[in-house]
Amino acid sequence: MSQAVPEPITKVVEAFSRLPGVGPKTASRLTYFLLRAPEDYSLGLAQALTNLKAQTRFCSRCFNITVADPCPICAAADRDADTIAVVEEPLDLLAIERTGIFRGRYHVLHGAISPVDGIGPDDLKIRQLSDRVQKEGTREVIIATNPGMEGDATAMYVQRELAGSGVTITRLARGLPSGGDLEYVDSITLMRALEGRSEL
Amino acid sequence: MSQAVPEPITKVVEAFSRLPGVGPKTASRLTYFLLRAPEDYSLGLAQALTNLKAQTRFCSRCFNITVADPCPICAAADRDADTIAVVEEPLDLLAIERTGIFRGRYHVLHGAISPVDGIGPDDLKIRQLSDRVQKEGTREVIIATNPGMEGDATAMYVQRELAGSGVTITRLARGLPSGGDLEYVDSITLMRALEGRSEL
Repeated sequence: MSQAVPEPITKVVEAFSRLPGVGPKTASRLTYFLLRAPEDYSLGLAQALTNLKAQTRFCSRCFNITVADPCPICAAADRDADTIAVVEEPLDLLAIERTGIFRGRYHVLHGAISPVDGIGPDDLKIRQLSDRVQKEGTREVIIATNPGMEGDATAMYVQRELAGSGVTITRLARGLPSGGDLEYVDSITLMRALEGRSEL
Repeated sequence: MSQAVPEPITKVVEAFSRLPGVGPKTASRLTYFLLRAPEDYSLGLAQALTNLKAQTRFCSRCFNITVADPCPICAAADRDADTIAVVEEPLDLLAIERTGIFRGRYHVLHGAISPVDGIGPDDLKIRQLSDRVQKEGTREVIIATNPGMEGDATAMYVQRELAGSGVTITRLARGLPSGGDLEYVDSITLMRALEGRSEL
């Protein structure tokens, strides 16, 4: 930028620009918003960011992000220890929690197998999952990876890893999303919905 | 959020959510991105935010945001001291700087007159502008407020304030934006383009 923009401003703009989905224009807008806002705004965000990684870690059991280890879900006595839902990311775990109907525990893989991005099974918490299933005598593993190519490949790999351990392996149903319109549904989803049709 | 989200995470999500155009979903996405990224990312942003307001102030002459006072533009010997472009916000100043053709100086009002938002002339740097015009013996004031109701009201007020000071007052031209299509131009813009037509 020109001489009109002092360094303390460009530094914030550059830092914001590194966030996903934040282009240089949005980054400028956010920065100048903070310049107009009370200083508490920027200092509060700065403090929160400083604590973000310093005060959190992976749960040694399920690899969700947590302050206490084990995490509150793994430590909760009222959650079913027999069932593990396997998700790619912590945000996927939160999506399942929001349904309010799952009372089991989780295992966060921290990614999906993606040859394009150079992510193989060893980069994910898959071995830790099979160790855990062995040790905890899990009854059911629900594979809740994303419904796409990488999620499918990961699901298949996890299934193979757990085969022979005696655990029941299930996968989230595929089909029509609620509220959708058949006319606008893509063919793969419709194909899956046909394949997975159930008798009424 | 649920027990699955530790406080250091919710604090960052909440702080991001206070930014304009950032909803809770985007705030979560940004936060979990930072959790995955090297700690330098979040610490770098935190440091930049801490310095943002602490190391900047208003230029005592033009009220642009600056580290040194007067700001580099006011201090630059090669900029025309006779001409002042009056803008609403620092980002408007940057837009004019990007054209590369304006060699005068600026005056940042820090807003526009807006009765709806309770912003009157005294909340803006208008009095400071007329003092400055008087003191510096400015030759031309280019009013470059936004082309809308609030910008127009502000322009009219500034014009009245400066009337009688002997300074030439001009305003940015209104008309068709470059690259547009006449068919899609709104009527007010087209009306202004007709009124402002020039002989070839």
